[in-house]
Amino acid sequence: MNYKMTIQYDGTKYNGWQRQGNTPDTIQGKLEAVLSKMMGAPVEVQGAGRTDAGVHALAQTASFRAGEEPGREGFLKALNGYLPEDIEVLSLERAPERFHARLNAVRKTYCYRVALGEGKHVFARRYLWRTPGPLDLESMRRAAQALCGTHDFKSFCANRKMKKSTVRTLEEILVAFDREQEILSLRYTGNGFLYHMVRILTGTLIEVGQGKRAPEEMTRILAAKDRQAAGFTAPPCGLTLVSVAYREERA
Amino acid sequence: MNYKMTIQYDGTKYNGWQRQGNTPDTIQGKLEAVLSKMMGAPVEVQGAGRTDAGVHALAQTASFRAGEEPGREGFLKALNGYLPEDIEVLSLERAPERFHARLNAVRKTYCYRVALGEGKHVFARRYLWRTPGPLDLESMRRAAQALCGTHDFKSFCANRKMKKSTVRTLEEILVAFDREQEILSLRYTGNGFLYHMVRILTGTLIEVGQGKRAPEEMTRILAAKDRQAAGFTAPPCGLTLVSVAYREERA
Repeated sequence: MNYKMTIQYDGTKYNGWQRQGNTPDTIQGKLEAVLSKMMGAPVEVQGAGRTDAGVHALAQTASFRAGEEPGREGFLKALNGYLPEDIEVLSLERAPERFHARLNAVRKTYCYRVALGEGKHVFARRYLWRTPGPLDLESMRRAAQALCGTHDFKSFCANRKMKKSTVRTLEEILVAFDREQEILSLRYTGNGFLYHMVRILTGTLIEVGQGKRAPEEMTRILAAKDRQAAGFTAPPCGLTLVSVAYREERA
Repeated sequence: MNYKMTIQYDGTKYNGWQRQGNTPDTIQGKLEAVLSKMMGAPVEVQGAGRTDAGVHALAQTASFRAGEEPGREGFLKALNGYLPEDIEVLSLERAPERFHARLNAVRKTYCYRVALGEGKHVFARRYLWRTPGPLDLESMRRAAQALCGTHDFKSFCANRKMKKSTVRTLEEILVAFDREQEILSLRYTGNGFLYHMVRILTGTLIEVGQGKRAPEEMTRILAAKDRQAAGFTAPPCGLTLVSVAYREERA
C-alpha cells in the first residue's frame, strides 16, 4: 500500500527534514522511527521538500509504503501520540501506487517572515527573523518581479557541486507587510527550489530593501550563475514550507 | 527615582516570576541582574503578580527604584538587548515616588487557554494546555457565575499556611470558545489572586465541563474553605497574566 500524509512541524530543534546517518534529530528520522515501530518493519518516508535545519512546515507532504494498518481508523491518532509535540501529522490517506511526494510535486509555496520593528515578538520569536527596518518595499517588489519566471537560479544555489539542472520556474513572490505587527512576509511559489534558494532570494531582496542593491541588478545576478553574485543567506528560523501541490490527474 | 515597567514573557523555561535564593532562572532574577549591571548598583524589582513556573505574561507590571538613567532615551532598547529573547520590557516610565507595582494594583486579568480538539497546536503548544473535549460550556458558565463576587477563596488556595486574609473579589470569569481552533479561553478578572488560585479555579471549572461536578457545588466548595473540596490544579503552560490595572488617582 502507498500512503500520502501532510505534516506540520516546528523545526527549531531539528537538524532539518532529511535523515542523516545516525543523527536521530531530523523530521524524516522521527517519522521513520515511529512508523517503523508501529508497523514492525522498516518504513522509508519520502518528503516533498527537504527543509533545512531550523526551518518549519505548515503542510509538508510525504509518502511511504506500508501494509494495511495506516489506512485503519485510529492509526493517525496513535501516530501523533508517539510523535513529539513539535511534529503533527495532519492527514494520512491511501495514495495511488505510483505516487511519490517529491517526484510528483508540481508546485511548492514557502513563506519567509521578517520582523522589522524593535519588538522582540516573545511568543512568535521562533518563527520569524528580526532585522531592523525600514525596508524599501517598492524596490523589493520590483526586484521580486525581475526574479520571477523560468531562469537558471545557479546564483541562488548554495550547492556548488550541483550537477543537475539549476533551472526553475518561480511563479510568484508576494511581498506583504503587516504594519501593526511590523512583520514583512515574502511568499514564494514555484515548481521547485534549489538548496538554500529561498533563503538566498530573501537575503538578496532584503539587501535591495536596505538600498544596498538596485532592483535592476537582479538580471545581472541571474546571468552571473555564481553564488557570490547574490546576497546573504537569510537565517532558517524565518522560513516555513507552506504547502505542496500535485497535479490531480497524475496522482 | 521610581519607575514602572510593563513586561512580556514566555515563562516556559523559567522558575516563575519570583527570585529564589541563588536560582537565577526567574523573571525577577533576570530583570534584577540586567538592571543592576546597567546601573552599577543593586536594583530590586517588584512585580504585580508572582506568576508560577511556566506561566506567561502579556503585560506584567513591575516597579523599581534607580537613578536618572532609566528615564533616558535608548535605555529601554539597551535593556531589551541585554535581556534574553523570551523576556521583553514593553514600556518603561517614571512613576510617582510612592508607586509600588504590587501594592497599588487594583485589578488583574489572567487568561487560561485549553485546547479541546485532537490538534497538537505545534506552533502555540507552549501557550495552552491540551485536554480532550467536549466540555459542557453552559454548565461551566453557571459555575463561573457562582464563583464570581467577594468570597473567601481558601478552597482555591494552594498555600496551606496562608495567614493573611483569603478573601478576594472575583469580578468576572469570561468563558469563550473558538470553534475553529477548538480553543477554550477562561478569562479571570479580580482584585487579587491567591497562590494557584486561577489554576485551581480552572481545574474545577473543567471538572464541571466534564460532568464530574455540578455547577451547584461551587457554593459548597467555597463554604468548605478546604483545598480538598475544589478540583485539580490545571498545568501552568495554559496560563497567561494578561494585564494589571491601577487606580489612576492613587498612582
